[in-house]
Amino acid sequence: MIKILCSPLTKLPALKWLKIYNTSALQADAMAALIVTIMLIPQSLAYAMLAGLPPATGLYASILPLLAYALFGSSRTLAVGPVAVISLLSANAVGLAHITSGLDVLTLSMTLALLSGMLMLIMGLLKLGFIANLLGRPVVIGFITAAGILIALGQLKHILGIPLSGHNLPELAHGLLQYGSDTHLLTAVVGVVSIVFLWWARTPLTHLLCCFMSATAASTLSKMAPVSAVVIAILLVSNLGLDQQGVKVVGHIPSGLPSLAWPELSWLLASTLMPPAIMISLIGYVESISVAQTLANKRRQQIEPNHELLGLGAANIASAASGGFAVTGGFSRSVVNFDAGAQTPMAGVFTAVGIALASLYLTPYLALLPKAVLGATIFVAVLTLIEPHEIKFTWKYSKHDFAAMMITIGMVLCVGVEAGVMAGVVATISLMLWRTSRPHTAIVGPISGSEHFRNITRHNVAQFEQVITLRIDESLFFGNVRYLDNQFNALLAQSPGVEHLILMASGINHIDSSAVKSLLEFNQRLQDKGIQMHLSEVKGPVLDRLKRVNFAEQLTGTIYLSQHQAWQDLTKAP
Amino acid sequence: MIKILCSPLTKLPALKWLKIYNTSALQADAMAALIVTIMLIPQSLAYAMLAGLPPATGLYASILPLLAYALFGSSRTLAVGPVAVISLLSANAVGLAHITSGLDVLTLSMTLALLSGMLMLIMGLLKLGFIANLLGRPVVIGFITAAGILIALGQLKHILGIPLSGHNLPELAHGLLQYGSDTHLLTAVVGVVSIVFLWWARTPLTHLLCCFMSATAASTLSKMAPVSAVVIAILLVSNLGLDQQGVKVVGHIPSGLPSLAWPELSWLLASTLMPPAIMISLIGYVESISVAQTLANKRRQQIEPNHELLGLGAANIASAASGGFAVTGGFSRSVVNFDAGAQTPMAGVFTAVGIALASLYLTPYLALLPKAVLGATIFVAVLTLIEPHEIKFTWKYSKHDFAAMMITIGMVLCVGVEAGVMAGVVATISLMLWRTSRPHTAIVGPISGSEHFRNITRHNVAQFEQVITLRIDESLFFGNVRYLDNQFNALLAQSPGVEHLILMASGINHIDSSAVKSLLEFNQRLQDKGIQMHLSEVKGPVLDRLKRVNFAEQLTGTIYLSQHQAWQDLTKAP
Repeated sequence: MIKILCSPLTKLPALKWLKIYNTSALQADAMAALIVTIMLIPQSLAYAMLAGLPPATGLYASILPLLAYALFGSSRTLAVGPVAVISLLSANAVGLAHITSGLDVLTLSMTLALLSGMLMLIMGLLKLGFIANLLGRPVVIGFITAAGILIALGQLKHILGIPLSGHNLPELAHGLLQYGSDTHLLTAVVGVVSIVFLWWARTPLTHLLCCFMSATAASTLSKMAPVSAVVIAILLVSNLGLDQQGVKVVGHIPSGLPSLAWPELSWLLASTLMPPAIMISLIGYVESISVAQTLANKRRQQIEPNHELLGLGAANIASAASGGFAVTGGFSRSVVNFDAGAQTPMAGVFTAVGIALASLYLTPYLALLPKAVLGATIFVAVLTLIEPHEIKFTWKYSKHDFAAMMITIGMVLCVGVEAGVMAGVVATISLMLWRTSRPHTAIVGPISGSEHFRNITRHNVAQFEQVITLRIDESLFFGNVRYLDNQFNALLAQSPGVEHLILMASGINHIDSSAVKSLLEFNQRLQDKGIQMHLSEVKGPVLDRLKRVNFAEQLTGTIYLSQHQAWQDLTKAP
Repeated sequence: MIKILCSPLTKLPALKWLKIYNTSALQADAMAALIVTIMLIPQSLAYAMLAGLPPATGLYASILPLLAYALFGSSRTLAVGPVAVISLLSANAVGLAHITSGLDVLTLSMTLALLSGMLMLIMGLLKLGFIANLLGRPVVIGFITAAGILIALGQLKHILGIPLSGHNLPELAHGLLQYGSDTHLLTAVVGVVSIVFLWWARTPLTHLLCCFMSATAASTLSKMAPVSAVVIAILLVSNLGLDQQGVKVVGHIPSGLPSLAWPELSWLLASTLMPPAIMISLIGYVESISVAQTLANKRRQQIEPNHELLGLGAANIASAASGGFAVTGGFSRSVVNFDAGAQTPMAGVFTAVGIALASLYLTPYLALLPKAVLGATIFVAVLTLIEPHEIKFTWKYSKHDFAAMMITIGMVLCVGVEAGVMAGVVATISLMLWRTSRPHTAIVGPISGSEHFRNITRHNVAQFEQVITLRIDESLFFGNVRYLDNQFNALLAQSPGVEHLILMASGINHIDSSAVKSLLEFNQRLQDKGIQMHLSEVKGPVLDRLKRVNFAEQLTGTIYLSQHQAWQDLTKAP
């Protein structure tokens, strides 16, 4: 056990790339780090605001966690830090716990990050990453879409300068109706102009820049737009005194590095925060690994899922220990890091140094930043989380999956993020059970001149009165035993002259104990009617299992290797 | 909608058999009813005691419910009434609700029967019977085994005459240790002698009787043993005055027919009792339909699952309206009814008349019946619910299913029946997801001289360096997308010279939207490496779905009808 738990530590991914680290990689990493640092400063402040925390915590969450991930993570180019949906999850959970426990929100946020990090570590050490598989694509896309909408609407608080709050659509809509008329005009001008500028910079500007430089450079440069907005806004505030005229600014940020301290963890607090911590660790992991996987595929690198869990777990624990909140791998900053040429996680180390310098020397300037500008950067960033083509694809491909997606979106919007994800997971599993409980079956016959058997209603195949072959296109398990029993009975009622029934098992990947009992009973019933039951194309693992209970001995017929053999044997003249 | 809801009523099963009812059927039914009535009287009293209710309610639960089932149910020979496990569920639920609501247990039991009946009716009308599929064989057997143990131990209260109570093994064990020394000697003698007699009558006596009569008659006669025990015990009590010496008897039973009255139903009460009502309706249905199915198969009759739900729902509502408690189809009495020659549900009507006569004229005698004798009949009856060979079969066949069974048994014994069934269902679904998340895959090649492809590690097959065929033995869905992605990558790393990858889809019964996206991404990655991806043996329904998103156009290779074609096409000399 100790060996299993320690093995990830003796196989640190960092040891691998550090061995071959050289000057050219160092230059590339430093350059990428510079660009990511500039991009990460406003993002850190914005997501701290989204998480309901003082702006400095955003910077703190972007220093030690980056070092921790660089040491333990397996992706070469993933950029870790605060991200929108995780900040929203943190804000919701902490808001609730603040009311019940009376503890301050920062302590609660740190505790939540600690718990999430510990869960990720445990999942990584025990190789339980597969639990995240429960979050299917419909649930993840549905969750991100709806969370994006909620986050965007929530930013209207800062963009319009109104006291808006709420965890779901009805609450936010109610707040908007109530306070909409209190909009602070100057704040709204700053906010709306920022949105327009950022939106323009995202696509039209990129297209324009493409005329002068490579597409990658244009895209990276356009991602610097938030920084220019921040710089311009700070200059405007300091020169025009906008903060005196009621435009809310970030305000004093203590300069310096974060101090190290563990949040105190009581059983009561841990049990209150455990459900959101589970949610954050699963969603954070799913989000991050898909980014890491996409980037690794581009450079033919490998991602090791369990190391990713260790890396993200360490990052969250580091965040908790240094006054930060929950973090994970972010999509846009990882892409910038990758495009700017980062070679190794050393880029993350350099970024951490950059952010540390910013929190030492830039805080007096950042204090003048209008909250409306931060709100605008969040607003524009999260709108790109909404991907209509993904929703359309799902609609076209599977109505079931679309239903699960809509249930997730609807529940997240109307009730809240946690209820939405839970409902989505329950819906996906229920729909899967429902589908497999009514499996597709087909009566098949041979296509003439081949050994190939196909559905008699779709293809022109040979048929034989005394021999029926039924292909069942599903594993047999407790959920479909009773349905299949009804199908068997109906089939026999329609086929009076039958003497042999062949179950073609090419689509049967597993037979559970409920189903094997049912098959034995059916075999008995067929025997009473003078019909022999045979199996064909039984897969190796299924056959191995049937042998354990002497199935072949109890079967009235034969288990054939191939359907062709069974057909030849049973249809030849007696 | 109205048509759908009414159709079951216009197709009453009773209309079918009443049309062809004749004197010979009437004689057979009357004979069977007489035997079942004699058997049902002590059972009714015993299960009322188990349900924590006055003995008369057991008789009431065996009058109107039988008429209701005869009208709506689809089984010809099922005998409905109080049964052990449902009585236990009712007792537990009502005991809890009694403390929180303060209402008397009889009202609560009637309300619970009403809710369970309504749930069964709704499931029957909306054809939702498939929900009961969730209870797989391991869960049902585990639940019944553990409930049998709990019920048997609980009867020690009556058999030993001690104030024992408890809903799980630790509570009962604690009670036994505490009160064991208070055992009332005379009561214990009556109880233990009854157990020994009933146990002897069950097997040794049947074997003895077989020497003189047919096996069926011997078995039916031996099932009358509880009645003889009851008669002998009543005679002993009235002659020796055992009740004066501290042997607890059933006591005064009001003679007469049940009065009709609906239990009042408040929202609060309904929501408190809803979880146990769901449990009772599902378990009652699963129990009953498996008995009905077994008996119907013997006489080549049909069971209509949705009519069964209507029949059982009507029976429970009738029980609630006439001072009874939750009922369902019972195994032993149905077998007796069947073996005694019952032809139609008219036997049930006659049985109801018999029980009504008993509650009119026999109650003064039944009042003298020692509770220890009733406890002994329950004790012996439920011990037969424990089927070690079923548990052994599951152990041999599937360790997963065995684990789910043990979790159910453990939780029922240590926590309680509801927690146990819930844990069993969650365990079954989790284990199924875990299994399907790591599907069996095999690299296959053709068996020489045939069109048949088999695992290269199990069979002697042809191989080809440039062409690899991977057979995936599982539907592709959100749960196994990431695992398969890893498998793909590992496969490619091992096979440097490959130019064509064929995915043999004979085991793929469904591809969900998460998986189709992943396949498209994998196809893209292969293209980057100059490898073509092909599919073969894709099933019709899967192919139809792939067409919706123009999968074939995006695929770098071809979708072949058969693996044989794909192999011939791709391995032939260029």
